[in-house]
Amino acid sequence: MYDLIIVGGGVAGVTAAIYAARKGMKFIIISPEFGGEIANSTYVENWPGTKSISGKDLARSYEEHMRSLNVEVVEDLVTEVKHDKHFHVKTYGGAYESKTLIWATGSKYRELGVPGEGELLGRGVTYCSICDGPLYKNKTVAVVGGGNTGMTSTIYMANIANKVYMIDRNEKSKCDKSLLNQLQSKYNNVEIIYNAEVESIHGEKKVTSITLKDGRHLEVDGVIINIGYMPITEPIKNLMELNKHGYIEVDWKGMTKLPGMFAAGDVVFNPYKQLVVSASDGARAALGAYDYLTTK
Amino acid sequence: MYDLIIVGGGVAGVTAAIYAARKGMKFIIISPEFGGEIANSTYVENWPGTKSISGKDLARSYEEHMRSLNVEVVEDLVTEVKHDKHFHVKTYGGAYESKTLIWATGSKYRELGVPGEGELLGRGVTYCSICDGPLYKNKTVAVVGGGNTGMTSTIYMANIANKVYMIDRNEKSKCDKSLLNQLQSKYNNVEIIYNAEVESIHGEKKVTSITLKDGRHLEVDGVIINIGYMPITEPIKNLMELNKHGYIEVDWKGMTKLPGMFAAGDVVFNPYKQLVVSASDGARAALGAYDYLTTK
Repeated sequence: MYDLIIVGGGVAGVTAAIYAARKGMKFIIISPEFGGEIANSTYVENWPGTKSISGKDLARSYEEHMRSLNVEVVEDLVTEVKHDKHFHVKTYGGAYESKTLIWATGSKYRELGVPGEGELLGRGVTYCSICDGPLYKNKTVAVVGGGNTGMTSTIYMANIANKVYMIDRNEKSKCDKSLLNQLQSKYNNVEIIYNAEVESIHGEKKVTSITLKDGRHLEVDGVIINIGYMPITEPIKNLMELNKHGYIEVDWKGMTKLPGMFAAGDVVFNPYKQLVVSASDGARAALGAYDYLTTK
Repeated sequence: MYDLIIVGGGVAGVTAAIYAARKGMKFIIISPEFGGEIANSTYVENWPGTKSISGKDLARSYEEHMRSLNVEVVEDLVTEVKHDKHFHVKTYGGAYESKTLIWATGSKYRELGVPGEGELLGRGVTYCSICDGPLYKNKTVAVVGGGNTGMTSTIYMANIANKVYMIDRNEKSKCDKSLLNQLQSKYNNVEIIYNAEVESIHGEKKVTSITLKDGRHLEVDGVIINIGYMPITEPIKNLMELNKHGYIEVDWKGMTKLPGMFAAGDVVFNPYKQLVVSASDGARAALGAYDYLTTK
């Protein structure tokens, strides 16, 4: 019987583990991998105190910090969570029981939901420019999405591809101005198409073109979709009511509507998905779980 | 006319400045100094990704990150804030106007409020072990307060002083277990007195003793008071209702009840005062102010 099980190995889960370890809690953290989504970012320049660092190095620093505290790590995927007096967590390889739970599994890529997207996934359709970008050296790609992720992808691809279309459904860019300035001052192989949405993706063996809702047809070799994320809540969605977007709502101590269950990071309803916000969520949830156990 | 004025130079204000700079906002940050309260900590081991760092080095890294973004910095103290359509901020040396405001001034030491405390301040009474601890080499001191700050002070003083009394009003230590373990395994010159409160502090030219509420009398050369903090809200307390403890309440975008006014860090009502929580507050308030200006 553990005091706490933390599920999720991103910055939220790892920060929760750092705090739980410092509080002397008896706990495990379960995740197939550690460091989180940020490892897929080329560079991070908004982690306070660190002017610039690769996402991979930053993710590794989180994991190393956690492991230096002799945390009990279970490298596995959670398949089911049940709750009676305690939490019963099943993974592919085991079963664990605890008095409190922190759910910090993050989110997955949001899909466009258009014809061709699923069929051509991995054959020109991708959600991760860092992972697949190098495949499009000297080719033409479309980046879909005008937020910070889309703009970061666009800049990254502008260095690799011959031509980049950026498809933005808004009438102007919503990304950080510093990113937009960087794009406009350094690259002349990017065409931003505002007020535009993808209607369909075409190709036989691999992507050859896309059609926009206004009828425009663009010949491209790849489509990078960066239109946001969906919270990963499958194993716990029956334990509580989620909000209309599928996110978990928590109070100021990080606790969900189910007593003893906490949530942190990108599964939590929060207007701003930022590394430092997720880290804060993780700290708060661990301290919240500690308080819950010591004061109830 | 600025888009935004940030008041406060701790991790909350500095993180807000980093985010505001990246959003391309026209803003200033006003504070007599930068890096924040954390500079007074000997070491920090819960900033995610950094196993151990001196408080001074961490504070400096925040300030350097901010300054690398060419932020307009005003090194001054705010004396008055008025609000009509805009915010009018006066300092000793100037006057500034903005459309939004982030209040991130942090908190100051909470006082015991006992006889002798004010009279002997700076002559044996202190709120900062790092600042004044070295004065008590081979002497006897009392540390008042059993939380993380009190325990960190106690460990620090155990290395310097001959004898340390730790006065804790609770029946057991509420600090992180790792700190308590460290104390108990390494030092034998510390006596923790639980269920105890200071009644009065005595001395003529300097502190010579304290009396506890149970009548015990302890001969000490110094008293280090670490019983928490009070939010600094003097210049803005007439702009909105504060909660019963004097803290500012904000919504999920960091906005106070006064539209356009945001708050971040230790002035905000929040169960957990942690560096990473304050940083998150700062990021959220800057993004909140940006959204407020662009969507209203």
